[in-house]
Amino acid sequence: MNASILSRTFPNGLVLVAEPMAALQSAAFTFLLPAGSVHDPLARSGLSGFTCEMALRGAGPRDSRQFLLDLDNLGVERSDGVTNAHTSFSGATLAENLPATLAIYADMLRRAHLPEEELEASRRGMLQELYAIEDEPAQKMMIELRRRHYPLPWGRPAQGEIPAVETVTLDEIRGHYRRRYHPQGAILGVAGRFDFPALVALVGELLGDWPAGENGAIVEHPATSHCKHLPYESGQTQIGIAYPSVPYNHPDYFQAFGAVGVLSSGMSARLFTEVRERRGLCYSVHASYHSLRHRGGVFCYAGTGAERAQETLEVTLGELVRLGRGIEEQELDRLKARIKSALIMQQESSSARSTALAFDWYHLGRARTLGEVEQLIDALTSRSINHYLAEHPPGDFTVVTLGPRPLEVPRGIS
Amino acid sequence: MNASILSRTFPNGLVLVAEPMAALQSAAFTFLLPAGSVHDPLARSGLSGFTCEMALRGAGPRDSRQFLLDLDNLGVERSDGVTNAHTSFSGATLAENLPATLAIYADMLRRAHLPEEELEASRRGMLQELYAIEDEPAQKMMIELRRRHYPLPWGRPAQGEIPAVETVTLDEIRGHYRRRYHPQGAILGVAGRFDFPALVALVGELLGDWPAGENGAIVEHPATSHCKHLPYESGQTQIGIAYPSVPYNHPDYFQAFGAVGVLSSGMSARLFTEVRERRGLCYSVHASYHSLRHRGGVFCYAGTGAERAQETLEVTLGELVRLGRGIEEQELDRLKARIKSALIMQQESSSARSTALAFDWYHLGRARTLGEVEQLIDALTSRSINHYLAEHPPGDFTVVTLGPRPLEVPRGIS
Repeated sequence: MNASILSRTFPNGLVLVAEPMAALQSAAFTFLLPAGSVHDPLARSGLSGFTCEMALRGAGPRDSRQFLLDLDNLGVERSDGVTNAHTSFSGATLAENLPATLAIYADMLRRAHLPEEELEASRRGMLQELYAIEDEPAQKMMIELRRRHYPLPWGRPAQGEIPAVETVTLDEIRGHYRRRYHPQGAILGVAGRFDFPALVALVGELLGDWPAGENGAIVEHPATSHCKHLPYESGQTQIGIAYPSVPYNHPDYFQAFGAVGVLSSGMSARLFTEVRERRGLCYSVHASYHSLRHRGGVFCYAGTGAERAQETLEVTLGELVRLGRGIEEQELDRLKARIKSALIMQQESSSARSTALAFDWYHLGRARTLGEVEQLIDALTSRSINHYLAEHPPGDFTVVTLGPRPLEVPRGIS
Repeated sequence: MNASILSRTFPNGLVLVAEPMAALQSAAFTFLLPAGSVHDPLARSGLSGFTCEMALRGAGPRDSRQFLLDLDNLGVERSDGVTNAHTSFSGATLAENLPATLAIYADMLRRAHLPEEELEASRRGMLQELYAIEDEPAQKMMIELRRRHYPLPWGRPAQGEIPAVETVTLDEIRGHYRRRYHPQGAILGVAGRFDFPALVALVGELLGDWPAGENGAIVEHPATSHCKHLPYESGQTQIGIAYPSVPYNHPDYFQAFGAVGVLSSGMSARLFTEVRERRGLCYSVHASYHSLRHRGGVFCYAGTGAERAQETLEVTLGELVRLGRGIEEQELDRLKARIKSALIMQQESSSARSTALAFDWYHLGRARTLGEVEQLIDALTSRSINHYLAEHPPGDFTVVTLGPRPLEVPRGIS
């Protein structure tokens, strides 16, 4: 837990934040690029995702095929995707292959071909993904819950929307790439085995002269209504409940995080115990914290048979309301044991750490060591959490259900 | 890669197989118990899963609630489940908490309460899981593919079937627990930070006097027909293709594994390139190896819009047939780079190693170090793989589709 975190901010705004993990042979990286779906024009939901897909189809000296061949030759386990705030590109490989891998990604960030001949295959692939969501009721419901919980454009689906993806043009993609792929607000998290001075020199060489760009302000519009039923022919009902919470960068964040943990972390947590173990109302029920930079939310999910859906909604909402009345010392003790274990295991994964470093920097403007996080967790008491809960009881619920019949949301709940 | 593997076989048949990982602070374990779904009586599909669910609801001095509280207090990240051959119980936690955690699991294996008052909540939870599969077309299709590829009882769904789960009695569960939870054929894999002599002493104390049991022979019945369309109202079609392969313990296993890797490992692999990148036929397409002890299979999946499903089926089948004509040296080079990277990363995860140790022991009667695996991978050549493929070209396909319309399976294919 005594790891140290090193960072360097380049003149063009790019931040490198890195944690050496001497025991490992691997190295992992996470690029967060300020090209999230909130930047998509209103009628172009999916432009960020489409641009990300196209950016990976050839860059610098490599065409689309060679780009993939070379990453595979370097043994890179990669992933990429779009969230509301970012387009992210991550990978993990052998430490010795990190420099060559970062060089390929630098090409992709700065010299993507965005080739016309790949446009329609990319579009078809993206549309297939969107069509497939129609067959995934839980995901469909969660997309609607997010949309109704956060104000526009923060609640928009990062996957995009079919009409926009059907009509986006290559010019729009190229314009989006030109405007949004820049170092101002970009963060590169690296964890694992590496030499920091050499890494700084390499990143400086690859990205130090990447011209700075600008991140326009995001204009928010309030979300529409709070409750919604989506008709869906099935024997199952998907239930989603969200309520506002403080963001990750708030001084009270760990109080709120602790409260959600009592609700949903571990097999003895309240939701699992009350909804699944005692009543057998559903197989899967959970709540998790989600944070934008300036606001947060807790998102609960329960999926159940239609005939038990009303009861499941009521029991789940009941647990959320009961949380506002406080937690017990023993619940917190268990949670601390679980978190401590999870922190140690995170310290053993270069991928998990590189993601956490970049996430921290985005939210806090610095990254916390796991030792610091441990101290913050140790400092939690049931008194401090209950004080927080008394001031911020779960409420102002957004409820989205998807299934054969609407449910009755108890009065005064949302 | 120079790790050493230690093992001990206790007189009652229980095997402990362990790999110390000195750089880690965590320890992980995997119990494989010879209580898989193949042992469920024909009309009782789901009995193993139900018994597993009930076994976790109180054991030894702990009632159902205390059992979960104590595991959470120890910070255990646990998972459990049933496959055709085994019921498995896994967990990871801080190294210092491993002994207390194993003691709780030993109680569960030997002194589960299987309490009557938890029966109906367990049943409802299990049924909810089975109902939910009705809304997951990809999973529904893969269950049918497995059922048609492997002979009975190996192809039966490990999740069980609704009519059986609705009617299983407590007596049946108690009988199954008595007959199937025993050390003969049980394997405990442990990886991470521990002292082996102390671990042997602990496991001996907890499980050394666990009375031996018996594993009856499994009688096989041939699977029914090879091709099947499941009607499902949706704009999407799920396509599954399986073909037989050698099992994990076969001398040619790594040849077969290499061939599947060329098909589906990495972004430059054939299926991804031809089906997704070039044609945009679907968002997700992949093939993976699965092995029973005495037979193996390769399982391919592609999900796509109904209007492109026929083309997707043909292109995917075409790639499988083309694989039989051989691979290129460069394809193997890329695969080796990817596997080497994956092996290094596996060496950094106590959970992944504990699972692999137990898996190896079940299939091979010993566990391979990652160094050994690396040597076996290094020894692969395109010539050796092509020799294998010439003798075992993919064929005898099982094809299952799920969607609005049946597809035409090309003649001579299955």
